[in-house]
Amino acid sequence: MSKSRLEAFSDGVLAIIITIMVLEIKTPHNAGWSALREIYPYFLSYVLSFVFVGIYWGNHHHLFHTFQNINAGIIWSNMNLLFWLSLIPFATGWMGENRFAQNPVILYAGLLLTCGISFTILQLCIQRVNRNNPQLMQAFERVMRKGIFSVVCYSLAIPLAYYNTIFSGVLFVLVAVIWIVPDRNIERALGKYNG
Amino acid sequence: MSKSRLEAFSDGVLAIIITIMVLEIKTPHNAGWSALREIYPYFLSYVLSFVFVGIYWGNHHHLFHTFQNINAGIIWSNMNLLFWLSLIPFATGWMGENRFAQNPVILYAGLLLTCGISFTILQLCIQRVNRNNPQLMQAFERVMRKGIFSVVCYSLAIPLAYYNTIFSGVLFVLVAVIWIVPDRNIERALGKYNG
Amino acid sequence: MSKSRLEAFSDGVLAIIITIMVLEIKTPHNAGWSALREIYPYFLSYVLSFVFVGIYWGNHHHLFHTFQNINAGIIWSNMNLLFWLSLIPFATGWMGENRFAQNPVILYAGLLLTCGISFTILQLCIQRVNRNNPQLMQAFERVMRKGIFSVVCYSLAIPLAYYNTIFSGVLFVLVAVIWIVPDRNIERALGKYNG
Amino acid sequence: MSKSRLEAFSDGVLAIIITIMVLEIKTPHNAGWSALREIYPYFLSYVLSFVFVGIYWGNHHHLFHTFQNINAGIIWSNMNLLFWLSLIPFATGWMGENRFAQNPVILYAGLLLTCGISFTILQLCIQRVNRNNPQLMQAFERVMRKGIFSVVCYSLAIPLAYYNTIFSGVLFVLVAVIWIVPDRNIERALGKYNG
Repeated sequence: MSKSRLEAFSDGVLAIIITIMVLEIKTPHNAGWSALREIYPYFLSYVLSFVFVGIYWGNHHHLFHTFQNINAGIIWSNMNLLFWLSLIPFATGWMGENRFAQNPVILYAGLLLTCGISFTILQLCIQRVNRNNPQLMQAFERVMRKGIFSVVCYSLAIPLAYYNTIFSGVLFVLVAVIWIVPDRNIERALGKYNG
Repeated sequence: MSKSRLEAFSDGVLAIIITIMVLEIKTPHNAGWSALREIYPYFLSYVLSFVFVGIYWGNHHHLFHTFQNINAGIIWSNMNLLFWLSLIPFATGWMGENRFAQNPVILYAGLLLTCGISFTILQLCIQRVNRNNPQLMQAFERVMRKGIFSVVCYSLAIPLAYYNTIFSGVLFVLVAVIWIVPDRNIERALGKYNG
Repeated sequence: MSKSRLEAFSDGVLAIIITIMVLEIKTPHNAGWSALREIYPYFLSYVLSFVFVGIYWGNHHHLFHTFQNINAGIIWSNMNLLFWLSLIPFATGWMGENRFAQNPVILYAGLLLTCGISFTILQLCIQRVNRNNPQLMQAFERVMRKGIFSVVCYSLAIPLAYYNTIFSGVLFVLVAVIWIVPDRNIERALGKYNG
Repeated sequence: MSKSRLEAFSDGVLAIIITIMVLEIKTPHNAGWSALREIYPYFLSYVLSFVFVGIYWGNHHHLFHTFQNINAGIIWSNMNLLFWLSLIPFATGWMGENRFAQNPVILYAGLLLTCGISFTILQLCIQRVNRNNPQLMQAFERVMRKGIFSVVCYSLAIPLAYYNTIFSGVLFVLVAVIWIVPDRNIERALGKYNG
């Protein structure tokens, strides 16, 4: 029961984060198609952030599916993750407003890196409380390789942005694709707990 | 249990989409009735979008009522639907700001078309996982005729907007009416799973 | 289960309505106390609307506690109520922006009247589906006298605003007080279903 | 069941409060790091308020875990707490906008004090309805010492702001730390109801 309220609160915060980002796409004052062309960097950064927050929701959902016991450490490391995720609309807006300029892209990569680290901290807190839970271990293993790959990509995206922000953008898309494309293990694991 | 979190997240996103649209109706700075007359295109487009998002909530609710098993495909096709729906406040604002000018109306029709297609994709993903579910089949059949009719109307609304946006508006209202007016089949189906 | 999603969606929309209203209170650009004095009409109208939306949440909660069967009519009359309630932030902002000028106060009274009528329509839809439910009948009776009193007050507030908006304000406060002050019947009814 | 809707509504409002505050951090129009330096007071006040709302969510969660019976008094004292918490985004924005000037800091301290008192009123309402509940008593005792300490700190922060707002800031941070740092009692109590 405790866990369900923590999930409900996290769902609420994630739903709001993912939706208020759209407010950064300002309504153009004229009706020409050129008005849409002008806001396309906002749109592009919105798509990217929507996908990342969506991935976090999916991983959060899978992670919390596996265990029952919560404590203050889990509550606060979850709050920590939500805090960094709540800054994504700001970083998204800054990146869109300045058409993927160097500094905003660096901030964005740094924020994604911090979110990734915060998710790992949450995982460790959950692991400490729910030892000897084979389902949790399995979920961890599955996420770990992708998680390490993501963190490496984010870390590379920061120095590469000094060279050319296109490279950072490619790395962001790469990470997103890695998480969205269904791997057979995920499908099988999901099939197991449903069927 | 998995399904309930997916529903909760979708409910959250839909509730926020439907409510933040009202922020597009800017508070007039003077107290005359004429100030209200000026914002009536915002109001009109808000009403239209409120009804469409409401219809999507209703259909989502009915669809998810019928099955139990979810997988990554359902999660991501649901996320895809939510993404396109999350752009409705923007399209609504653009249409209101420019008093139902040609381009915004075309964008709006195109967005509704994309949402309709995304809903169909979600249905197909659900069908693939939940084969041989007679309740689901029945729900599909019920939605299919109305769904095809809607997609045809949205598709017609795009070229017709080049001629006169009034025709597109009439088609939008027609689709909304078709979904809201209770048909006996829906009533009976609902009576069945309640009684 | 169906009912629980309808409640969850309504809770979401009401929670957002009640909270986004605070965004109408614009952050003053200077730090003097006089800056706060300037926004006090916003604050006052926010308090009023917070209380009214809070009352609607309370009544919605009590009403939905009493019955089980829902149908399309209930879903749509609930959507209709949420629509009118979603306009409260706009009416609140207009009233605050124009310091309780005549027209905004009339619009506000008219909106509250429409919300009151929409709540009654929802009640009638629920009653039609859930006949012979003594608990529902009891809840209806309890709400009816207060409901009629409120609708009369809102109706009086409209013509009185042409004379002096203070009278309308007094009527708004009166209605709010009537609903908040616990009457023994409510307490007893509540005690009954808890104890 | 009644309680669960009250929790859901409170979770929704708290999730929105904690997330819309980020909208106060305006997107800078240029891409220089100096643009970020300019908004750091917004960021700082956001962090502070995020932590405080997070603490309230945690305490609300723990409190509601312990009892079952609700009545109109609990509903309204909960609504009262949510009202004061809903003003935190405004006070946060004013404090950030004016870089921790005297008046906004005083308002912020006063608001936190009012929230603290409102939480105590909610506790008393819960206690009146749920007498002889040892789990509730234990939860009260745990929160009481920290609660009294917080209220004393907020009360001191008001006069100290007239001297130097740094002192008020230190007190805010002190209160936040007191609540976040896990004390063994909390851990043990949590371990008890989980294990």
